Amino acid sequence: MNYKLMLRILGQTLLVEALCLVIPLAVALLYHEDPLPFLNTIFLLAITGTILARVKAKADFYTREGFAVVGLIWLALSFFGAFPFWFSGCFSSYTDCFFEVVSGFTTTGASILTDIEALPRGILFWRSFSSWVGGMGVLIFTLAFLPKVGGRTQVLVQAESPGPVASKLVPKTAQSSKILWQIYLGLTVLCTIALLLTRLPLYDAVVTALATVCTGGFSVMNASIASYANPAAEVVVTLFMFLSSVNFAAYFLMLTGRVKQALQSDELRFFLTVCALAVLLIFGNILPLYDTAGHALRDAFFQVGTIVSTAGFSTADFNLWPTLSQLVLVLLMFLGGCAGSTAGGIKCCRVLVMGRCGRRALARLSHPRAVKVVKLDGKPVEEDTVNTIFVFFFLYVAVLAAASILVCRDGFSLTTSVTAALACLSNIGPGLDAVGPMGNFAAFSPMSKWILSLTMLIGRLEIFPILLLLLPTTWSRA
Amino acid sequence: MNYKLMLRILGQTLLVEALCLVIPLAVALLYHEDPLPFLNTIFLLAITGTILARVKAKADFYTREGFAVVGLIWLALSFFGAFPFWFSGCFSSYTDCFFEVVSGFTTTGASILTDIEALPRGILFWRSFSSWVGGMGVLIFTLAFLPKVGGRTQVLVQAESPGPVASKLVPKTAQSSKILWQIYLGLTVLCTIALLLTRLPLYDAVVTALATVCTGGFSVMNASIASYANPAAEVVVTLFMFLSSVNFAAYFLMLTGRVKQALQSDELRFFLTVCALAVLLIFGNILPLYDTAGHALRDAFFQVGTIVSTAGFSTADFNLWPTLSQLVLVLLMFLGGCAGSTAGGIKCCRVLVMGRCGRRALARLSHPRAVKVVKLDGKPVEEDTVNTIFVFFFLYVAVLAAASILVCRDGFSLTTSVTAALACLSNIGPGLDAVGPMGNFAAFSPMSKWILSLTMLIGRLEIFPILLLLLPTTWSRA
Repeated sequence: MNYKLMLRILGQTLLVEALCLVIPLAVALLYHEDPLPFLNTIFLLAITGTILARVKAKADFYTREGFAVVGLIWLALSFFGAFPFWFSGCFSSYTDCFFEVVSGFTTTGASILTDIEALPRGILFWRSFSSWVGGMGVLIFTLAFLPKVGGRTQVLVQAESPGPVASKLVPKTAQSSKILWQIYLGLTVLCTIALLLTRLPLYDAVVTALATVCTGGFSVMNASIASYANPAAEVVVTLFMFLSSVNFAAYFLMLTGRVKQALQSDELRFFLTVCALAVLLIFGNILPLYDTAGHALRDAFFQVGTIVSTAGFSTADFNLWPTLSQLVLVLLMFLGGCAGSTAGGIKCCRVLVMGRCGRRALARLSHPRAVKVVKLDGKPVEEDTVNTIFVFFFLYVAVLAAASILVCRDGFSLTTSVTAALACLSNIGPGLDAVGPMGNFAAFSPMSKWILSLTMLIGRLEIFPILLLLLPTTWSRA
Repeated sequence: MNYKLMLRILGQTLLVEALCLVIPLAVALLYHEDPLPFLNTIFLLAITGTILARVKAKADFYTREGFAVVGLIWLALSFFGAFPFWFSGCFSSYTDCFFEVVSGFTTTGASILTDIEALPRGILFWRSFSSWVGGMGVLIFTLAFLPKVGGRTQVLVQAESPGPVASKLVPKTAQSSKILWQIYLGLTVLCTIALLLTRLPLYDAVVTALATVCTGGFSVMNASIASYANPAAEVVVTLFMFLSSVNFAAYFLMLTGRVKQALQSDELRFFLTVCALAVLLIFGNILPLYDTAGHALRDAFFQVGTIVSTAGFSTADFNLWPTLSQLVLVLLMFLGGCAGSTAGGIKCCRVLVMGRCGRRALARLSHPRAVKVVKLDGKPVEEDTVNTIFVFFFLYVAVLAAASILVCRDGFSLTTSVTAALACLSNIGPGLDAVGPMGNFAAFSPMSKWILSLTMLIGRLEIFPILLLLLPTTWSRA
């Protein structure tokens, strides 16, 4: 292991985090709030980051280092990122601060706060902004703007990016990263403008746009988006949640004139089909509970969008919905959005490939000579990739089982425990029962909060980087 | 497709079913009960079977025919097997009769009966006996005693037997089948004798032994094994549930002097480790609810045995246990016993192989040059088998999701709906909540009962045969 290079990359990323904190600092100053929580953290980050970034290292860089350093970086970012919360004195323990910032960086949006509106605006801005930074990825940002880490940087992007294959838009990693960040920023600006047009106040429009496009789902209101009682804003948020669940590579194709190619993606079609089916099922199921079909349709759309995009905003308490609707939402919690988007979950393309493998296995039984390769977008998927996808699925279920077992010692109901673990693993936020849309994670024991924090990180980094850190052989010389 | 050969094999199997019905007929006569339900069914089976068995066919036989005919045969056996229940007049609808007999043949043990003790002894005997016949497999029985179907009969055994690879104890399929049936019969006789020694009445000892060794779990008492208030009988049942969850090939090895080889099985060690862990976890968790540690340990052992073996007897209402114990049991519902046993579920060896693939994937990240094959019992597992195991796991979860969605339209709780589907798919019987150990499946709508019946068949035949029947391409010429 090239520990020195790992430390250097870590240092550079901490400096980027210090830079990121300047924005909530500015917000705090703007609203005449205490700037010290941010100044102290920036100071600590700057010192640690500078020392580490000066470590001299060879540019030898392999997959192992890439995955391990990404895991370490996310742990370190969360460790420091919790400090502004801790220094603010608004949180009752460091555990809660760590949970909240991990929930931010991983774009989960699960909260231990019971009275969000009581917090200073600067602190709430950091909460939303952390999820915006985490949505596209901290390392991909670092690579876009500090592309001097050396070695095979594509590995870092691969380890951090959601989906079985990292989007490589153009041959150079740094260039690809820059394009993705520009698209991301563009979507955020568009969402902010659209929300302003629905007459949301500027501060609310900005933090809501940040939380929507990163599919984090942190709201600055206690009752989430429902607080605004603004159907137009709900529609805007719904639209942008769906837009943010699509592979960002599609937007790159569209912007470069390849609209047809972008729309022909198998994953996109699968995603849209599943969403349409889910909305229809839920709409039909909840219709009797509503006064008007329009309201039922809007709530069905919003809740499907919020779960499948793994944002986790809420406009309706689906704890009160019939079992069928709840189950559809739970299944969407597993699925998540498209690869290369900011959404969490298993990702549509993985489920699609597994489904096609299932069809192939059945077809092989009836026509053994017609051995076919599994295709995606007309191109064959390598058997190695297929195997990794299945391993991912198995580990996803295994991590869910382990986290559920550890969390359910707190004695909450089975539904609460399992959906809490699932909502964290898929980076959604709300689950069902006690962690439903109107509930939160405050009541869990500190141990469960640490476990769920780790679960969120495992989910955001798609299992391998964090599990790799836990494996003794990673640290052995070979 | 060689339809003629399929019909001929179907005919022979129906004749075997007619023969099987002679035993409950004898029981009915012995207890001076109405023999007509059995006589009528035997008559119908004999006519249909004789006509079909006379169909002249070429012995061309491929995987497709094998899997399709096994699916068809199990549907036909269930169709006719429900007739004695229907003719008895004790059931309110044919749907209920079909559900109950499918629950028998698939060794699920889920019941729609609310007052079991009110039924005639002959009918209850058929209920238990159907699960005993289904436990080892109807086709493997047919092949053992009517080995004249021609063609590649190994395919039939493969399609019906639980686990990724059919146990081939000796080169000849018919010979292997005979040995397995002898071991099965031997275990059943031993269990009966042991239960008689605990002073259970003869009839109860026989039906309980039948239901234990096949891991079906049908009891003739309303409160299942708890009715006997006989701790010694509970211990015997626990022991034989565990014994029946072990690959029967292990007993063949032991009987032929290869005890060491039998005990060195990776799957067996994994199975025993998981069971020990589960018992310990549950024991520690439920201890405060019990007067004596002995009783808590006995109940923990029994419930772990009943779930992991997928028998589904009950001596305690685990609906009242803490969440942790419930979740452990739910996870065991997925797992099931060893391949080549009478237990259902995903099977230990599949989970073991998937776990080893997960470890390999992580190891590959840190040491890419050390590409290893996954091994089981020291032998490499072919990548094709690995792929089939993962596809199986994915389809298992997919079928569970589909069945849960269809069933939850009945409006029961999420826990009830999902565990009902899981308990049927894994051929266990009881789930949680309304379908818990003290509940039953009577309250489901007829449509849900048909869906759950199909789910039981999909689970018992390990997905592929039934899904193959539903696939249009199976019926196309190619």
